[in-house]
Amino acid sequence: MVNRHMQDIRKLLENVQDGSVKIDEALQKLKDLPYKDIGIAKIDHHRELRNGYPEVIYCEGKRVEHIRQIVEVMLEKGNNVLATRASREMFEAVKEISETAQYHEVPRLITIKNKEIVLSDSVIAVVTGGTSDIPVAEEAAVTAEMLGNKVERVYDVGVAGIHRLFGNLDKITQAKVIIAVAGMEGALASVVGGLVDKPVLAVPTSVGYGASFNGLSALLTMLNSCASGVSVMNIDNGFGAGYMASMINKL
Amino acid sequence: MVNRHMQDIRKLLENVQDGSVKIDEALQKLKDLPYKDIGIAKIDHHRELRNGYPEVIYCEGKRVEHIRQIVEVMLEKGNNVLATRASREMFEAVKEISETAQYHEVPRLITIKNKEIVLSDSVIAVVTGGTSDIPVAEEAAVTAEMLGNKVERVYDVGVAGIHRLFGNLDKITQAKVIIAVAGMEGALASVVGGLVDKPVLAVPTSVGYGASFNGLSALLTMLNSCASGVSVMNIDNGFGAGYMASMINKL
Amino acid sequence: MVNRHMQDIRKLLENVQDGSVKIDEALQKLKDLPYKDIGIAKIDHHRELRNGYPEVIYCEGKRVEHIRQIVEVMLEKGNNVLATRASREMFEAVKEISETAQYHEVPRLITIKNKEIVLSDSVIAVVTGGTSDIPVAEEAAVTAEMLGNKVERVYDVGVAGIHRLFGNLDKITQAKVIIAVAGMEGALASVVGGLVDKPVLAVPTSVGYGASFNGLSALLTMLNSCASGVSVMNIDNGFGAGYMASMINKL
Amino acid sequence: MVNRHMQDIRKLLENVQDGSVKIDEALQKLKDLPYKDIGIAKIDHHRELRNGYPEVIYCEGKRVEHIRQIVEVMLEKGNNVLATRASREMFEAVKEISETAQYHEVPRLITIKNKEIVLSDSVIAVVTGGTSDIPVAEEAAVTAEMLGNKVERVYDVGVAGIHRLFGNLDKITQAKVIIAVAGMEGALASVVGGLVDKPVLAVPTSVGYGASFNGLSALLTMLNSCASGVSVMNIDNGFGAGYMASMINKL
Amino acid sequence: MVNRHMQDIRKLLENVQDGSVKIDEALQKLKDLPYKDIGIAKIDHHRELRNGYPEVIYCEGKRVEHIRQIVEVMLEKGNNVLATRASREMFEAVKEISETAQYHEVPRLITIKNKEIVLSDSVIAVVTGGTSDIPVAEEAAVTAEMLGNKVERVYDVGVAGIHRLFGNLDKITQAKVIIAVAGMEGALASVVGGLVDKPVLAVPTSVGYGASFNGLSALLTMLNSCASGVSVMNIDNGFGAGYMASMINKL
Amino acid sequence: MVNRHMQDIRKLLENVQDGSVKIDEALQKLKDLPYKDIGIAKIDHHRELRNGYPEVIYCEGKRVEHIRQIVEVMLEKGNNVLATRASREMFEAVKEISETAQYHEVPRLITIKNKEIVLSDSVIAVVTGGTSDIPVAEEAAVTAEMLGNKVERVYDVGVAGIHRLFGNLDKITQAKVIIAVAGMEGALASVVGGLVDKPVLAVPTSVGYGASFNGLSALLTMLNSCASGVSVMNIDNGFGAGYMASMINKL
Amino acid sequence: MVNRHMQDIRKLLENVQDGSVKIDEALQKLKDLPYKDIGIAKIDHHRELRNGYPEVIYCEGKRVEHIRQIVEVMLEKGNNVLATRASREMFEAVKEISETAQYHEVPRLITIKNKEIVLSDSVIAVVTGGTSDIPVAEEAAVTAEMLGNKVERVYDVGVAGIHRLFGNLDKITQAKVIIAVAGMEGALASVVGGLVDKPVLAVPTSVGYGASFNGLSALLTMLNSCASGVSVMNIDNGFGAGYMASMINKL
Amino acid sequence: MVNRHMQDIRKLLENVQDGSVKIDEALQKLKDLPYKDIGIAKIDHHRELRNGYPEVIYCEGKRVEHIRQIVEVMLEKGNNVLATRASREMFEAVKEISETAQYHEVPRLITIKNKEIVLSDSVIAVVTGGTSDIPVAEEAAVTAEMLGNKVERVYDVGVAGIHRLFGNLDKITQAKVIIAVAGMEGALASVVGGLVDKPVLAVPTSVGYGASFNGLSALLTMLNSCASGVSVMNIDNGFGAGYMASMINKL
Repeated sequence: MVNRHMQDIRKLLENVQDGSVKIDEALQKLKDLPYKDIGIAKIDHHRELRNGYPEVIYCEGKRVEHIRQIVEVMLEKGNNVLATRASREMFEAVKEISETAQYHEVPRLITIKNKEIVLSDSVIAVVTGGTSDIPVAEEAAVTAEMLGNKVERVYDVGVAGIHRLFGNLDKITQAKVIIAVAGMEGALASVVGGLVDKPVLAVPTSVGYGASFNGLSALLTMLNSCASGVSVMNIDNGFGAGYMASMINKL
Repeated sequence: MVNRHMQDIRKLLENVQDGSVKIDEALQKLKDLPYKDIGIAKIDHHRELRNGYPEVIYCEGKRVEHIRQIVEVMLEKGNNVLATRASREMFEAVKEISETAQYHEVPRLITIKNKEIVLSDSVIAVVTGGTSDIPVAEEAAVTAEMLGNKVERVYDVGVAGIHRLFGNLDKITQAKVIIAVAGMEGALASVVGGLVDKPVLAVPTSVGYGASFNGLSALLTMLNSCASGVSVMNIDNGFGAGYMASMINKL
Repeated sequence: MVNRHMQDIRKLLENVQDGSVKIDEALQKLKDLPYKDIGIAKIDHHRELRNGYPEVIYCEGKRVEHIRQIVEVMLEKGNNVLATRASREMFEAVKEISETAQYHEVPRLITIKNKEIVLSDSVIAVVTGGTSDIPVAEEAAVTAEMLGNKVERVYDVGVAGIHRLFGNLDKITQAKVIIAVAGMEGALASVVGGLVDKPVLAVPTSVGYGASFNGLSALLTMLNSCASGVSVMNIDNGFGAGYMASMINKL
Repeated sequence: MVNRHMQDIRKLLENVQDGSVKIDEALQKLKDLPYKDIGIAKIDHHRELRNGYPEVIYCEGKRVEHIRQIVEVMLEKGNNVLATRASREMFEAVKEISETAQYHEVPRLITIKNKEIVLSDSVIAVVTGGTSDIPVAEEAAVTAEMLGNKVERVYDVGVAGIHRLFGNLDKITQAKVIIAVAGMEGALASVVGGLVDKPVLAVPTSVGYGASFNGLSALLTMLNSCASGVSVMNIDNGFGAGYMASMINKL
Repeated sequence: MVNRHMQDIRKLLENVQDGSVKIDEALQKLKDLPYKDIGIAKIDHHRELRNGYPEVIYCEGKRVEHIRQIVEVMLEKGNNVLATRASREMFEAVKEISETAQYHEVPRLITIKNKEIVLSDSVIAVVTGGTSDIPVAEEAAVTAEMLGNKVERVYDVGVAGIHRLFGNLDKITQAKVIIAVAGMEGALASVVGGLVDKPVLAVPTSVGYGASFNGLSALLTMLNSCASGVSVMNIDNGFGAGYMASMINKL
Repeated sequence: MVNRHMQDIRKLLENVQDGSVKIDEALQKLKDLPYKDIGIAKIDHHRELRNGYPEVIYCEGKRVEHIRQIVEVMLEKGNNVLATRASREMFEAVKEISETAQYHEVPRLITIKNKEIVLSDSVIAVVTGGTSDIPVAEEAAVTAEMLGNKVERVYDVGVAGIHRLFGNLDKITQAKVIIAVAGMEGALASVVGGLVDKPVLAVPTSVGYGASFNGLSALLTMLNSCASGVSVMNIDNGFGAGYMASMINKL
Repeated sequence: MVNRHMQDIRKLLENVQDGSVKIDEALQKLKDLPYKDIGIAKIDHHRELRNGYPEVIYCEGKRVEHIRQIVEVMLEKGNNVLATRASREMFEAVKEISETAQYHEVPRLITIKNKEIVLSDSVIAVVTGGTSDIPVAEEAAVTAEMLGNKVERVYDVGVAGIHRLFGNLDKITQAKVIIAVAGMEGALASVVGGLVDKPVLAVPTSVGYGASFNGLSALLTMLNSCASGVSVMNIDNGFGAGYMASMINKL
Repeated sequence: MVNRHMQDIRKLLENVQDGSVKIDEALQKLKDLPYKDIGIAKIDHHRELRNGYPEVIYCEGKRVEHIRQIVEVMLEKGNNVLATRASREMFEAVKEISETAQYHEVPRLITIKNKEIVLSDSVIAVVTGGTSDIPVAEEAAVTAEMLGNKVERVYDVGVAGIHRLFGNLDKITQAKVIIAVAGMEGALASVVGGLVDKPVLAVPTSVGYGASFNGLSALLTMLNSCASGVSVMNIDNGFGAGYMASMINKL
C-alpha cells in the first residue's frame, strides 16, 4: 500500500515537473485519492486491488440503514464483501440489494461473493478448546476463506481432555499457521505452541464465568504462554486472527 | 478439634453438676484452655496432640527476636517446629536455641525435628512447570514431609514441552493427591487435572513478568480450569498446599 | 484413566509384536479410541467405566437442539446424565427423549438416573453463608449425590450471626469433606476452616453488590484465608466443588 | 469549627455595623484568620482550642528539616504533637528541639506531651487478627490515647482460631467503639460486628502476600461485611481509625 | 447480645448445678435458642428485645413467595419490619398479609410499623451530592427513622456548586452524625469532613458513567479522604449507613 | 462567578455598615442567593448572566416528570436549554411545554433555543477515529454550538488508515482547540497532538469489545499520550469536552 | 507546525516545477528535513522557531552519558533546555558542558537559559492539595515559566481544610488557566472547577497510600469531576500540565 | 517436531514388530528420548537439529551457578547459546567456560556463537516508539539474528512526531515481518499496521509512569488496534517477538 503511495507521489511530481498538473491541484490530489466519502463513513477501496480481497464492515453499533448504504457503495465496484458482527436484521436489509448475500448464523457474518476466490495450497488450522468457542473460531475461519485460504477446522480439543488434541495433531501439524481459540483458562495455545513448530495466533474468548472475567483470564494465559511462537489477538477477535493468519499464510 | 471441645464442655458440665467445679470457675475455664498468651502472640498447642504435627510460624514481617521467643515456647513442649518465609538471619537466631534446627535455603524454611516423623504409605506428588517454581514447590514438599507424608517431586515438566510431562506421568498417577505449582500461564494444573483422576491442588506462583501481574495470570488460569478435580491456593502458598494435601492424603 | 491408557498401549504393542495388528492400524488406533465425534462436540465415554459416574454437560451458551443431540448420544450407552446451567427450555427438550429426566429449579440442573447410584458412607457437608448462596450450594450438593456421595446440607449459617454456625457444628464436624459456599465478604470458609480439622473447598459466589464486584471480594477472601486446609474453586462453581469433594470423599 | 466561624462572622458584621472595622479590613479578615503560613505548609491552630487535642503531622514523603520546622511552629503554642509515619531519623531531629518527644518504634509515631491528657471513662477496643497487624493497631491506639481516650488492646485473635476471640469477648463487649484491624482475608471485622452490638471501625492492613494484593482483599472483605454496624477506613490507616473512634467515643 | 448470651449460659450452668436441667439437654439448649428455622432462612429474633428495633430482610435475589413467608414469621411476633431492595411485586405480596405495609418507591423499601417508634432527640443528617444519589440516601434515611432516629435531609449539595453546601451548613453542623452520599467523584465526604467536627459515614454510589466504574471511583475517593473523621460503607449501601449512624447516634 | 460573589459580599457589608440591612438578614442572604430550590433539584441561574449560556440538565437516571419540571423552571427565565443523555420519551414530555425543543437522535440531546446564539469566529474541530464514535462527538459538537462556538466536524479519520487524517489536516490545523474522540485503541489523540500545535481535548469512548474494557483501553492510551498538549476527559464525556473547549476557545 | 510543512511542500513542488530540484531529490527531502539523527535519539529542532521555546528531554531511564550527548547537540543551536525527571548525577554531567545549567531539587528538573524568556501578561495558577504534591506542581510551574508564562503558586489548600482555599480564591480567580495538583482523594480539581470559571487542568499525583493505588484514586476522581471545565493529565505529569496550560494561556 | 515424533514412534513400532525392541523397552523409550535431566532443569536438545538454532536460557530468578551448569551441558553439544535477562555477574560466570561468550549490555543478553549463522535474505524490521524502548527492541533484534534473520532497526519513530516514522517508511515497507515496540500509549503498532501490508508483532513495554501501569496501557492499546494484521506479545517480551518473527520470516 505504501509502495503504491510512493509511486503515486512520484507520478504526481513528474506531472508537476512537465506542467501537466498545477501545484494547487497537486496539493489537492495528495489528500483526495485513497478514499471516497459517503457522508457516514469513509470507505477504502485500495484493498480491492489485491486479488479477491473483500471489502470489510464491522457492523456492531451501526444502524441497519447505514450497513445497507455502505454495502451498496461497495457493490458498485463489484467486490466481495465481508460483514462481521452482523445481526439477522442487517442481513435481511443487505439481502434486498444483493441476492448472493449469505448469512452465517453461528459467527454472525454476512458474505457476498461476486468474484471467485482462489484458495491457497497451504492451510490455516483453526483449533478450539470447547464447543462454546466455535462462534469466534468460525469468524476466523470464514474470514480466512474469504481472503483465499484453505482452512482446516479442529474443534473441541481442549487441554482438559488432551488425548483429543493428540488424536488430531497431524491435521494441525500440516498447517502453515495455526489459530488457537479458547476461553476459560485458555491453555490450548500454550500446549499447541509447545507441540507444533508453526506460528500460533491465540484468540482468547469471553466463554466462561466467574473469574474468567469475560475473557481476561484466557487473555492473560495466552500473553504469558511459555511456549515460543505464540502471539495474541483481542478477546473474541476471530476476524483479526483470520486476517493476520491469511497475511502470514500468503507471505 | 471441635469434638474435643464438645467433650471438654460435657466434662465441665458434669463437674458443675457434681459440684466439683463452681460456676464462675466454669465460665472462666471456657475462655482459658486452648491457648497460652506470651504477650507477642497467642500460640496454639492443641495441634501437638495429633501425632507428629509440628508447630508452625509464619515469619514474614516478624522481628528476629520475636521468632526466637515464639520458638522457645514451642520447644518447651518438645514439639517439632516448621517456620516458613524465614530469613537466614532468623535461622541463626533459632539455631542458638536449637541445635537440631535446619535451614532450607531455596524455600526459606526452618525445620526442627524433635519427635520422629512416621511417613504415610500413600504419596503426594509435587509437580512444577519450570525451575523458577521450585522454591514454592519445596515449601509445599517440606511442609508435607514435616506433616508425615511421603513426597514425590516432579519438577520442570511444564506444558510448553508437554513430552516431559508425559515422560513422568506414571510417577504422578501413582500419587494420592497432586500439588501442581506453576507461574506464567499456569496451564499445568489443567493438563494434569485432565490426565490424572486424582485431586489436584493448584498453586499459582508469582514467577513471570509483564502481564503475569505477579501471579494473577496463573491464578485466574487455575480458577478457570476446565478440568474437573482442581482447586486453587493463594499465589505462592506452598505451605497451604502442603498442609491441605496432607489432610487429604491422611483421610 | 492414565493407567488404562498405559495398559491399552501395552496391549497394542503386544498385538503389533504378534502381528495381529498392523503398524498403520496401530498408529490410527492411538488416536481413535477414547472419544466419539458427533460433529458438534466430542463426548468422552471413558468415565462411564467408573461405577455410576454420570456423563456431564455444561449447557451455558449451547443451543437447545445441541443439548438434545448430546444427551441422545449419552443415553444410548445407558449412563446417568447431569446437565448443569440448564434452562427450563432445555429441560423440556431433554424430557422428550428421556422420561426419567428431572429438573432442579434452584440450581438449574437436569438429572437423568438410568443406573442406580450407591451412596458413600462418609458424608460431604455443604454449608452456605446466606440463603442467596443456595443455588450454587445445590449445584454442588446434587453433583455430589449424582457421583454417589451422601450429602449434609447446612444453609444460612454465615459469620454475621456466628451462633447459627455453632449450633450446627456437629453436623459439619462429622463430614469427611466440607464445601463452604459464600458471597459478599466470604468469611465463612475461614471460620469453618479454623473450627474443623477437615479439608474445606471454598466456593465464592457472585452474591452481593457494589464492592463485591460479582464475587471477586469473596474469591480474594477465600484465597487469603489464614485457616489451613482451605482451597478455592472458581466463583459460582458449585459443580466443580461437588466433583472435587466426591474425589476426596472416595479416596 | 463551623459554629465558631459563624460567630466570628457575626462579630465581624457587628464591628462593620458599628464602624469599628472598615469594609476592606473585614474582607481581608475573612481570609486571614484560621491558618498561619510558614511557607512550607499551612498549619491549622483551630484544633488547639479543644482540650488536649494535639497538632498532627503526616511525615511520609516530607523532608526531615521540614518536619523539624513544622514541629517548631507547633511547639510555640505549647500544644501536644503527634507525628505519624515518622522515621527514626525524623525523631532524632525532633528530639533536638523537644526533650519530651517520644518515639514509638512499632507504629513509627512521634509523640510530644506538653499538656496533660485527661482520659475518657469509656473505652475504645483495638482488636487485631494477627501479630503482623500490630503496627497499624498501635497507630490507632496511640492516636486514640493522645486524643484522650482509654484504650483496650486485644491482639492476635483472628478468625482462623476463633476460640481466641471468644476468650476475649468480654473485653471487647465492654468497649463503646471497636477498631478491628486485619490483613489477609480480613474476616475479623465481620465476626466482631456479628457478635458485638457496638460500632466497628474496620481497618484493612497490607499484611499478606499473593492475592492479598497489598490489602485490597481485606478492604473488599470489610466493605462487603454482612454484619451491620461496620464501616471501613483506608488500608493501613490506623491514625484515621483512632481519630474517628475518638470522635464517636466522645459524642 | 453477647452479655445476654453470657447470662443465659450462667443460668443454664446454675440449672445444671441444681439438677433442674440434664447435661444432654443443656448441650442441646446451647445450640437451639437464638434462632428459629423455617426451612428457607434462619431468622434472628434477638434484636426485637431492643426497643422498637425492626426485623430486617434483604430482598435482592430472593423469591416473592419466600419474602412473604419470612415476613409472615416476623409478623407473628408483632415486630416492625424493614425490607430493603424490594420490588413492587414483593410489596404487593407483603401487602396481602399486612395492611399497614408501606412501599417507598425511590429507595425500594417496604416498611411495616406495628409498634410505635420513639424518635431520638439528636439528629442524623443525610447529605447527597446530586439528585441521582437520592435513592441510596433515602434507604439510609428511612432505615435510620425505622431505628428511631430523627433525620435531616440535605440533598443535591455537591462540591461542583459548593455554595449550595455552605447555604445548608448549619443544618449539617447541628447533627450528631452525618451520612454523606455521593457518586461520580465522591468528593462530598471530604469537604463535609473538613468543615464539620462530627463523624461522617461516607456512602459511595454507583451513579456516574465511564471511569466511575460503577462506584469504584467514589469508593476510592472516600477511602482516601484527607479529612479526619470519615469512614466508608460499601457502594450503594444506604441501609448499612443508616444502621451504623443509628448505633452511633444512640451511644 | 467568584468575583461576582465578592462584589455581592462587599455590597452586603456596605449595607450592614449603613444600617440598611440587619445582621441576621445579612447572614441569611449569604446562604440564599445563588440558587433556587424546587424540591427535586437545586438549579443554578448564575450562568444565565453570561451571553447565551444555556441551562444544562443531565438526564440519565432521572424521571421523565422531573425532567419536565426542571425544564419548566428553566424556561421561566427565558434561557436556552441543553439536556444531555435524554431519551425520546423525555423529549416528548419536554416538547409539550416548549414547541421550539429539538431532539438530536444520535447524541441523545434535547436543545431549546429561546435566545439567539452568536457564534465565535474561531473554530473548534471535533475529530473521530471511527463512525461508532460519532454519538459522543456529536454530544461535544452540539454542546459547543449551544455555547456559541463554530464547530468543524472531521469524522472517521482514525489511525488505522492514517491517510484519511492527512487528507483533512488543514481543517484541523485551522481550529483553535481540537476535540479528539476515539474508542478501541484511542491512538487518534496522540497522532493529532503530534501533528498540530493546538490544545487537544481527548475523549475516550466505550466503543470496542474484549480488552477495550468499556473504554478503559482508550482512556489509558490518551492519559499516556507522548504528544504534548493533550488532556483527557471521562469516557464518553462529549458534553464535558464541548464545555471545556468552549471555555478555551473564548478565552 | 503542519502549516510550515504545507509551505515546505509547496516550495518543493515549485522547485520541482521550475526544474531546480530533481524528483529523486524531492522525494528524499520529504523524509530528511525535520529531524537530525545522532544515533541515540532523533531530536526535533522545529520548535526552536517559536520564540524562546526550549528543547525538552525526558531523562527517566536514560543513561547519564546519553543525556549529556543530547544536551550537547541541543546547545549547538543556542536554545534553552528543559530536562525533566533528572537526577543530580545527570545534572553534574550537564553542568560540565553548560555553566548556566541549574538544578531544581524538588521537581528534579535541569534548566538551561541561553535565550531570554519574555513572560506573558496573563497568569497560570498552580494549586496543590497538600505539601507532598509540591514536586509535581513545581514541575508544572517551572515548565510553564520556561515556556514564557507568569505563574502564581498557591500550595497546600486542599479540601480537608477548605477555608485555606477560600483565603486564596482571588489569586486563583485572576489566572487565565489553572493547574490543580492533588493526590489521595484528588477532590481539589472539582472544588476549584466549581468555584472558578476558567479551564482547570487536573493533575493526579501518586501521593497517598493503601487504596490510593499510586494515584489511581485521584485520577478517577478527577475524570469523574462533576464540575464542568476540568480535564485530566496522567498521574504525576507536571510537565504535560505546564505545557498544555502554556498552550492555552498563549492562544 | 511432532512429525519427528510420529516417525520415531513408527520406527519403534517397527522394531517391536521385528522383535529387535522389547515391549517394556519400547514403553520406556517413549518417555526418555527428547530431553536430558541434569537435576536442576530438563534441557531440550531437539531444536539443535534445525540449522543454527541456539539453545535458549531464561535467566531471571535463576542462580549464577545454575546458569553456568546449564550452559556447560549446552556447550557439550557444540550448539550456539542465547541467554536472556542475564546479569553481568552471570556473564562473568559463563565467560569462564566459554571464551566466545559476548554480553549485550542494553538488552541484557549473553550470546555464544559456536556454529556459523547463515542469515535470511528477507528482513525483519524492528521499530520503536522511543529511545527507552530500545532494550526490549534489542532483545528482539539479537534473538532474531541468533535465529538466522537479517534485521533492520528503526528506532525512536513514535507517533508523537509522526514525520519521523514517514521518513523511515521505506525501510519498514521492505521487511517481511515487522516488530513494533512501544511503551506509554503504544499507538505505534496501529499506525504501522495501518500503513504497511505486512504482519506486525506488537510488543508493549513497561516504559512510562502513572497510568501506564507498567505496560498495561500499551498492552491494551495494542490488543485493541483497529489496524488489521497486528498481534500482541507479553509486555517487554522482546525474545518472544524475535522468535515468532523468525518463524514467520522463514515460512
